[in-house]
Amino acid sequence: MQRVRSCEMSQHVGSRIRLQGWLSAHRKLGGISFLVVRDGWGVVQVTADAQALEPLARAGAGLESVLEVCGELRANPKAPGGIEVIAPTIEVLVAVGEPLPVALGKALARAKLPDLLEHAPTVLRDPSRRAVFELSAGAMAGFRRRLVELGFTEVQTPKIIRSASESGANVFELDYFGSPACLAQSPQLYKQTLVGVFERVFEVGPVFRAEPHATVRHLAEYVSLDVEFGFIDGIHDLVEVLREVLAAIMDELRERHPAALARLGTTLPVVPAVLPAIDFEAAQQLVEASTGEHVVGEPDLAPGHEQWLGQWAEREHGSAFLVVTGYPLAKRPFYTHPDPRRPGRSRSFDLLFRGTELVTGGQRLHRHDELVSAMQRAGMALEPFAGYLEAFRFGMPPHGGFAIGLERLLTGLLGLGNIRLATLFPRDRHRCSP
Amino acid sequence: MQRVRSCEMSQHVGSRIRLQGWLSAHRKLGGISFLVVRDGWGVVQVTADAQALEPLARAGAGLESVLEVCGELRANPKAPGGIEVIAPTIEVLVAVGEPLPVALGKALARAKLPDLLEHAPTVLRDPSRRAVFELSAGAMAGFRRRLVELGFTEVQTPKIIRSASESGANVFELDYFGSPACLAQSPQLYKQTLVGVFERVFEVGPVFRAEPHATVRHLAEYVSLDVEFGFIDGIHDLVEVLREVLAAIMDELRERHPAALARLGTTLPVVPAVLPAIDFEAAQQLVEASTGEHVVGEPDLAPGHEQWLGQWAEREHGSAFLVVTGYPLAKRPFYTHPDPRRPGRSRSFDLLFRGTELVTGGQRLHRHDELVSAMQRAGMALEPFAGYLEAFRFGMPPHGGFAIGLERLLTGLLGLGNIRLATLFPRDRHRCSP
Repeated sequence: MQRVRSCEMSQHVGSRIRLQGWLSAHRKLGGISFLVVRDGWGVVQVTADAQALEPLARAGAGLESVLEVCGELRANPKAPGGIEVIAPTIEVLVAVGEPLPVALGKALARAKLPDLLEHAPTVLRDPSRRAVFELSAGAMAGFRRRLVELGFTEVQTPKIIRSASESGANVFELDYFGSPACLAQSPQLYKQTLVGVFERVFEVGPVFRAEPHATVRHLAEYVSLDVEFGFIDGIHDLVEVLREVLAAIMDELRERHPAALARLGTTLPVVPAVLPAIDFEAAQQLVEASTGEHVVGEPDLAPGHEQWLGQWAEREHGSAFLVVTGYPLAKRPFYTHPDPRRPGRSRSFDLLFRGTELVTGGQRLHRHDELVSAMQRAGMALEPFAGYLEAFRFGMPPHGGFAIGLERLLTGLLGLGNIRLATLFPRDRHRCSP
Repeated sequence: MQRVRSCEMSQHVGSRIRLQGWLSAHRKLGGISFLVVRDGWGVVQVTADAQALEPLARAGAGLESVLEVCGELRANPKAPGGIEVIAPTIEVLVAVGEPLPVALGKALARAKLPDLLEHAPTVLRDPSRRAVFELSAGAMAGFRRRLVELGFTEVQTPKIIRSASESGANVFELDYFGSPACLAQSPQLYKQTLVGVFERVFEVGPVFRAEPHATVRHLAEYVSLDVEFGFIDGIHDLVEVLREVLAAIMDELRERHPAALARLGTTLPVVPAVLPAIDFEAAQQLVEASTGEHVVGEPDLAPGHEQWLGQWAEREHGSAFLVVTGYPLAKRPFYTHPDPRRPGRSRSFDLLFRGTELVTGGQRLHRHDELVSAMQRAGMALEPFAGYLEAFRFGMPPHGGFAIGLERLLTGLLGLGNIRLATLFPRDRHRCSP
């Protein structure tokens, strides 16, 4: 008998089927037992009498035991998904006798964060945890789909590099066959270089930051959704592609993952036809006028001010998204393009999503001489960047891009509160396992 | 005027258009100049008189200068792609005066490998180099597409891990906030753990091997296409998914990247309806009978023997692919499932593609006690693998998977001869830049 997956069951009502999965709940009512069997896609109820349960008892098979169940599938409006397996023959493939380290199901809401993380191999089996990562996969798929439609090419750039690209801080160093090397903090310099080849590139991959802080929004390793493209007229071109990508992600989640969204009680934000945008200085003035804090003239926005701006965008524009443009050049990396009309300001932007920085982007320097000057001003040696600079010696168009933090996107979308919950196996200052 | 990309030109014949790109060739014939302008998707010929070229001369703009050309698009069967831009107005966006470090175009075939790698930022712009990585992106897309159809979930697992998963050799070590850690040689233990969550998972991501050898088929960092799934009956289930994935990759390349294939003169292999398979011992006997070399009883196949078997599969089965099954357990990693009917042999396989190992796969141990025994026999400490073992303590089904090396796939498909040519920015014992 062919195995039927939980997501395919509704097509087989009235047939005898074979179900495989994990025993995720077991409830008795009079002489009848209701087993909930979970497979990789969902759950199916199995209704069994005492005799059918004998193999479980014999094997000492408790929760999370791996079962194979053959039986008749019938409609039952009271069962999860409206179907149940009756008259089952149950075989225990792998018996689990031990109690779980963390109780799954409703009890999981009361579990402490360290337990959730330490026991991720078990905890991720809970449908509410699993749903987060189904949506994470959906977000990657939506991101890629739209970019491919727009003529972008997916690339894979090296993660072991000779020199830090963003700044010397927060870098993981390693021994590379006896020479010093480090882990890429971003694919920035490579994606720019590849604008010279493909014009439009994207990458989905890990980036590494030796973050010294333990906050709810930083990880030492995370997944960056990187975009870079050439022949732009300014940052409005970048913001428009970002908008399209965000809309595609929401469409993908809405259309292909409704059950995961429903399980988490998530309402997806509307991506406006035009993302509301505000200049950095105007944003500071708003915050100052409202909070009385002296922020105008500061080189960056503090997280609390981003929160305030997020609420303001919701109020004023009905948007969960807000683009802040024109950050001071001083706080942006060396490759940032200055705003020629405003000394000290840059052609860069951040996207705040529900008041948290989700995306950083901007136009880059594209002329070799300007780039070399910027690197010298930043006190950088040129030699380790000879490859990067070669792309500019041989002609680079005006270009720019952005990077979306996948885990931050999920944290904000799903209201997880801590970025570690948007990561299968998070890495931070204090955690390198499981 | 809206910019038109080279791949969209054919829809605009007869119109005035704006073209942007790099000057990739410049040929004079009498008083007429033929410029070839390359953008991210292809090339367009621009036919210009001396006057139209003045901006180039004024700026000292040679090859790879970034240009904007406005002109009329007309059909010309003699021009590349059958179209050309006439009566152009040319603007030099970025002038390049320096000669290229490596001549692109036909001359590239004579360039030496170290020059190709050292000057990758420029060399990759050549359409024949670019095509390799367009196909690489297509291979990833075909891989993902089929797996998503089959109900697989894409995952992203950590690359910084506490302990080497495959063996202690070939590991890059790093300092993780003052504690020792290393880079993942594969997502093996994580993808197995996630079979407990999603049943069917895949990952596309970098893996790291401190390969001490400098060969044409090893890299220190490469992209692994990893697959793992549960509730298998044996390795035939794994081989069938592998076959479907390979077929999907070929379909994707054939349907969506015909120009890149044509440029490289590539004929895609037919993926047979059933992949031919041979037992490890039978393969050794064949090699021994044919070559006279004493190989029966050796624990592994040498590259030369794989080559011989590749030719044999081509001859006997008309197949570029050959599955070799049942490798000796001694040469396989600790998590490999033994073949219960044949002591010392395993439920594992390699896929040879044109005589080179492309894929390694197999069934894994899924019972906690058997896994613990195997680790103890291998002399491994259990404590660093507590998370991995937790998945098995709480019920894992029979499962297995495989990993395809993306660069090996491209090297074999395109006959590149050296895996470094299938990598944008290769990493080996002697190279960590660009």
